[in-house]
Amino acid sequence: MKTIKILGIVGSLRKDSYNLALLKAAQNLLPPNTELEIFSPAKLPLFDQDGEMQPTPAVIDLKNKIRNADAILFSSPEYNYSIPGVLKNAIDLASRPYGDSAWAGKPAAIMGASIGNVATARMQYHLRQVMVFLDMHPLNRPEVMVAMAQNKTNENGELTDDETKTKISEMLVALVDWTKKLASLSA
Amino acid sequence: MKTIKILGIVGSLRKDSYNLALLKAAQNLLPPNTELEIFSPAKLPLFDQDGEMQPTPAVIDLKNKIRNADAILFSSPEYNYSIPGVLKNAIDLASRPYGDSAWAGKPAAIMGASIGNVATARMQYHLRQVMVFLDMHPLNRPEVMVAMAQNKTNENGELTDDETKTKISEMLVALVDWTKKLASLSA
Amino acid sequence: MKTIKILGIVGSLRKDSYNLALLKAAQNLLPPNTELEIFSPAKLPLFDQDGEMQPTPAVIDLKNKIRNADAILFSSPEYNYSIPGVLKNAIDLASRPYGDSAWAGKPAAIMGASIGNVATARMQYHLRQVMVFLDMHPLNRPEVMVAMAQNKTNENGELTDDETKTKISEMLVALVDWTKKLASLSA
Amino acid sequence: MKTIKILGIVGSLRKDSYNLALLKAAQNLLPPNTELEIFSPAKLPLFDQDGEMQPTPAVIDLKNKIRNADAILFSSPEYNYSIPGVLKNAIDLASRPYGDSAWAGKPAAIMGASIGNVATARMQYHLRQVMVFLDMHPLNRPEVMVAMAQNKTNENGELTDDETKTKISEMLVALVDWTKKLASLSA
Repeated sequence: MKTIKILGIVGSLRKDSYNLALLKAAQNLLPPNTELEIFSPAKLPLFDQDGEMQPTPAVIDLKNKIRNADAILFSSPEYNYSIPGVLKNAIDLASRPYGDSAWAGKPAAIMGASIGNVATARMQYHLRQVMVFLDMHPLNRPEVMVAMAQNKTNENGELTDDETKTKISEMLVALVDWTKKLASLSA
Repeated sequence: MKTIKILGIVGSLRKDSYNLALLKAAQNLLPPNTELEIFSPAKLPLFDQDGEMQPTPAVIDLKNKIRNADAILFSSPEYNYSIPGVLKNAIDLASRPYGDSAWAGKPAAIMGASIGNVATARMQYHLRQVMVFLDMHPLNRPEVMVAMAQNKTNENGELTDDETKTKISEMLVALVDWTKKLASLSA
Repeated sequence: MKTIKILGIVGSLRKDSYNLALLKAAQNLLPPNTELEIFSPAKLPLFDQDGEMQPTPAVIDLKNKIRNADAILFSSPEYNYSIPGVLKNAIDLASRPYGDSAWAGKPAAIMGASIGNVATARMQYHLRQVMVFLDMHPLNRPEVMVAMAQNKTNENGELTDDETKTKISEMLVALVDWTKKLASLSA
Repeated sequence: MKTIKILGIVGSLRKDSYNLALLKAAQNLLPPNTELEIFSPAKLPLFDQDGEMQPTPAVIDLKNKIRNADAILFSSPEYNYSIPGVLKNAIDLASRPYGDSAWAGKPAAIMGASIGNVATARMQYHLRQVMVFLDMHPLNRPEVMVAMAQNKTNENGELTDDETKTKISEMLVALVDWTKKLASLSA
């Protein structure tokens, strides 16, 4: 049985990021025959269309990782009521040059953690709009929006909240199921 | 009479950016007693909250320019149906650390040019949502959305379309007027 | 001293609506020299452009109430991740015919209550986008998003939560202040 | 071979609606073994949760039509930068009561025509956000956004523009294909 490869992309560069904690927790909650690799956009350059035909090694690496993945799992904070620039820049880089986007057709899911109540909802719907153009296929549900993340993680940057772990497990099962279905269609 | 200082921020790093052309055109269309300086986010680092207490010179410079400005004029393409990561990263950098955002209270306006028909509308409404959190005061109108920008600029990256110039002039007058009104309130 | 008249518009027709409870609570939390009248869209027809030159009495009444108000206070649930159709229909009716919108230039604020966590955030940003076209001036903050509304109201449809009452008071003060400032500009 | 049934829902009540013209044109552009019925929300009541257990015949009819359809095709103007209240009200009615939404799992596509340039883009992304909650599966592309609709229809309310007809044909083929694929998964 083929292994499903998920690429987890974190939207924050913070070492103790709550959103990195969600991805690490997900690595321990995977369904059978599933792998989850985590990518941080820390090494990426700012996107400049003038240089897009000469991508840096970090950009080539990101595009390769996306292409090798069966599904994408974004885990990101909300910055200023939208997608972090750092994450959006990574998305822009991997979408170019024209006709060579790495994102097209990929199944996807979104998680987000924040210290407030709205729990990254505003970021998530902006990201969904972006995925229309990228021609990606995000799960409708479950939606993973983790409020009060400071109370659900420990000093080692680990997720400790059981309810959130259950939600992440459910999302992973749904994402793997959705990925297999979409793959069967294009097979 | 006090000079009104506008900081123009371009959302693309491309040398011949249509959006840079809009800002350069705006510099020739200014109302009396108005200045427009153009800022490019090319030199900015990726935002990392772990380092936000030690901003780089480029970040300090951006925050100073925003603080010294009476109004902000964004001119940006739309990337993947949203704000370019490069521009959003600049916004994130200047909004931090907590309690020290440079954006609060600033009057603002948005321009955008693209080669397609929707003409950056999707970017502009995402940017407006961001400005709610930043506590900025964007103009409602006129909205400057320049479609088919490739037909309205020349090989020197100059705006050549008279209708667009008129729209930009109207926006500048409205922005200066709005800026003076808001300033009179807080005086 | 002139009395500030606020028109509260509720986005739900439900008799025991949490959002109606917010508006009733607001009536008991008004700053000095302020009135708040509540409008329900229950009697309005569906908007049909073919009939817009012959508005029904309910539509004429709504437009008169808006025009007589110094500020608008929306209080609405979120239906299906956006503005309730009932409320949007009221907005559409009062915005027409072309050139005769009742909304133009009005200061505004938004409240919303829901039984979930996201607390009408998705509705509120769609409503803010609508207000760009309507040329209204919504407060940036405070934002009133009441989660778990079922635990903050009693069986008589009354708001019982002190923290929410404080938030509403703060919003009313900010709205009255913003309204006076904008009025002084156009005086 | 099973016939694919599409329910077209028009977002305007105007007799000579451009968006009704798009749906009528679509009826003449259908792929083989495909039917398209047009539904107008003209007879629907305003949604009131207090009465949702006693739906009117018009609401029952709408829910039946949705349930009998294999796919949904929205064709709608943009009112005040968002979904027309009339259309959103229809969506709200058919989504209730809780646990009895008629929309869940339906493949969908969106068309929109307007007299301006942005061509209903703002409406379309709000509608896509609504479809996340409804658990519908909208096509990513093609997107049908018809600008300057007054120049592409005749006095009989018929679509006359060949380019737009081609776009609609492409969307119908894509929608039927997407519908068959999703049906095969749940079979």
